[in-house]
Amino acid sequence: RIDGARLWDSLMEMAKIGPGVAGGNNRQTLTDADAEGRALFAKWCADSGLSMGVDAMGSMFARREGSDPEALPVYVGSHLDTQPTGGKYDGVLGVLAGLEVIRTLDDLEVTTRRPIVVVNWTNEEGTRFAPAMMASGVFAGRHRLDWAYAREDAEGKRFGDELERIGWKGEEEVGARKIHALFELHIEQGPILEAEDKEIGVVTHGQGLWWLEVRLTGKESHTGSTPMHMRVNAGLGMARITEAVHRIAMAHQPEAVGAVGQANVWPNSRNVIPGRAVFTVDIRSPDAAKLAAMRAEVEAEAKRIAEELGLGLEIEPTGHFEPVTFDPGCVGMVRAAAERLGHAHRDIVSGAGHDACWIAGIAPTAMVMCPCKDGLSHNEAEEITPDWAAKGADVLLHAVIEAAEV
Amino acid sequence: RIDGARLWDSLMEMAKIGPGVAGGNNRQTLTDADAEGRALFAKWCADSGLSMGVDAMGSMFARREGSDPEALPVYVGSHLDTQPTGGKYDGVLGVLAGLEVIRTLDDLEVTTRRPIVVVNWTNEEGTRFAPAMMASGVFAGRHRLDWAYAREDAEGKRFGDELERIGWKGEEEVGARKIHALFELHIEQGPILEAEDKEIGVVTHGQGLWWLEVRLTGKESHTGSTPMHMRVNAGLGMARITEAVHRIAMAHQPEAVGAVGQANVWPNSRNVIPGRAVFTVDIRSPDAAKLAAMRAEVEAEAKRIAEELGLGLEIEPTGHFEPVTFDPGCVGMVRAAAERLGHAHRDIVSGAGHDACWIAGIAPTAMVMCPCKDGLSHNEAEEITPDWAAKGADVLLHAVIEAAEV
Ligand SMILES: NC(=O)NCCC(=O)O
Ligand SMILES: NC(=O)NCCC(=O)O
Repeated sequence: RIDGARLWDSLMEMAKIGPGVAGGNNRQTLTDADAEGRALFAKWCADSGLSMGVDAMGSMFARREGSDPEALPVYVGSHLDTQPTGGKYDGVLGVLAGLEVIRTLDDLEVTTRRPIVVVNWTNEEGTRFAPAMMASGVFAGRHRLDWAYAREDAEGKRFGDELERIGWKGEEEVGARKIHALFELHIEQGPILEAEDKEIGVVTHGQGLWWLEVRLTGKESHTGSTPMHMRVNAGLGMARITEAVHRIAMAHQPEAVGAVGQANVWPNSRNVIPGRAVFTVDIRSPDAAKLAAMRAEVEAEAKRIAEELGLGLEIEPTGHFEPVTFDPGCVGMVRAAAERLGHAHRDIVSGAGHDACWIAGIAPTAMVMCPCKDGLSHNEAEEITPDWAAKGADVLLHAVIEAAEV
Repeated sequence: RIDGARLWDSLMEMAKIGPGVAGGNNRQTLTDADAEGRALFAKWCADSGLSMGVDAMGSMFARREGSDPEALPVYVGSHLDTQPTGGKYDGVLGVLAGLEVIRTLDDLEVTTRRPIVVVNWTNEEGTRFAPAMMASGVFAGRHRLDWAYAREDAEGKRFGDELERIGWKGEEEVGARKIHALFELHIEQGPILEAEDKEIGVVTHGQGLWWLEVRLTGKESHTGSTPMHMRVNAGLGMARITEAVHRIAMAHQPEAVGAVGQANVWPNSRNVIPGRAVFTVDIRSPDAAKLAAMRAEVEAEAKRIAEELGLGLEIEPTGHFEPVTFDPGCVGMVRAAAERLGHAHRDIVSGAGHDACWIAGIAPTAMVMCPCKDGLSHNEAEEITPDWAAKGADVLLHAVIEAAEV
């Protein structure tokens, strides 16, 4: 069993870095707060005698040696970056539970045959720099390194420059590491486990996603003296497409979700018809055919609405992953661990994207989920209990031990 | 006749201050650029031997003496502040045409019986600090001075502090001046005059307006893992109310307009359901009953939509004026001047609010309009011809001479 109090202390210690405005965190990727969080994690890893590797995307790999130096390592981890108004557990739990697995093995003086590597992937959230799960995506060969470096935040700062600025651009070639198996513990970020009184979610699949950035061009004009029929209103177009995204997601229920997260108009003045609107669409489904259909429907609706209002339209895909099926062997280890520990569990589909979803394409991978209160995440009020955290970490420990072989 | 080339030169000179990004101007009220524009206008007034008074709202009153020192003055003017992406003529034409009237009377060595005062009203646009026509509203007794001082911009800066900062808080009591008559020349900001090949609009009425600020509170949550039925989406509420405002305005056609100009969501992140939305509604009609009905319908629809989505709703009125009927005597002078000069004219209702609309409540007032290209205003591409400007200023000259008595 892991030490639940020690895990909880580490979570609370990390949460002091990049405090939010309402009890959560704002530790967005490649900010000074991110650098501070990384330094604390690195110190803890050094305290446990782990050796640290950093790749050219800034992902951190802390390694505990195994008895067989030739054996491929078992990876365990998640991400330390947060949303602008994020919680204390989303991602952080997975990294620190990985560290807790190491600390527990040290306490028990257990050496596994395979090395164990605790990983912190850079820019999982994707808010500051789209897409999400960016470093694990480069690692898995889904994005090119120079493409990732050229991604810009809202202020026009480039990912590569910001990575260098905070001092975490490593030497290691991204994706050069070979992985025997990877396990990621994450909070559910949805309401199912809590509602059904389950302590553990055995993640069998992950939803697929499309992110679209939509840009509408209308004509700025006076709200008072421009007759209704002469308006070319980009804000009205944004409103109609926002409603269309919702309608399309509702029509594909229950295996579909969709929403507009970012919404901006220019010049954003009370008495000016918006001449420009830029907003983002997020649509997801665990069913690849449904996801493709939703994307086509959203684009067709956007086109129809832009035409009906006389607006210029550009749609740029800024994020995409297909639905994922996790490795049955690794999933079996997670299920067996929950069973052995006597924790109430059920199979579950991940609604969110995770670094593990990219890694699943290149190595045997599985995920463990624990409940979160009211299914709330991407909200500073995100909350879990120490007991849920400990039970999730225990399942992680058992699965890792099985994969790493004692 | 006024000197059209001199008027145009002054317009182009003023347009150099607070340049926009696309050929227009960003000389928002109480910015450094506003202070610079005021200084240039004050210099021109001094060059013409006018005495300058400044009231506690920062409105500027440049006076040319008449032959009868006891006679109430005739006022002429508009505003020098602009939208964030504004044109070179909206407001500026009215102030500089007023100055051109003075310069022309000087050239002709004509002394009127009544003094003539050229006025630059502070914060007509209302973008940085709502409401619009703020200083003329205080002058006309519609707002209290301390209420106006306490108005805040988006950064939380107060109107009173900013007025002091730029050095234009005057000593004069606001509204203490008595007005014999006021004339304002303004570009139409709509398409009617150009479409009908008219050079002059004789403004008989002004539309009434309601500005509402709407604030919706939902619940931030994950776009991927929050089931559709658990979402409390403030952005979707904003979209639906935006559409409702449009629908309501269309239903009251042709004597009604309505739009949402500002639109903001929080945290404005791709994968977070917006937990908060703040946006502004602008509805107008020349018919008071229609305007009241539209406001009631917008509020009822907002309430219905907020309830259907489970959103918290606050609606704050931030601007209001009733439809205005201008003084038949003054309007007659404008119509007679256009007639006498042989300029093609028609009666027109002002779609926009103007300082003259407030003053109409306390003194005999009228407005002259000239066309603008494609009816475009509140856009950096706003354009007029030197000929339109000159003809408008000529009508202004003749009306002012008649009211000021030679
Ligand atoms: N787990 C998580 O919030 N990941 C960010 C990417 C996504 O939006 O799914
Ligand atoms: N003329 C003008 O644009 N005034 C600003 C107030 C309004 O929006 O009507």
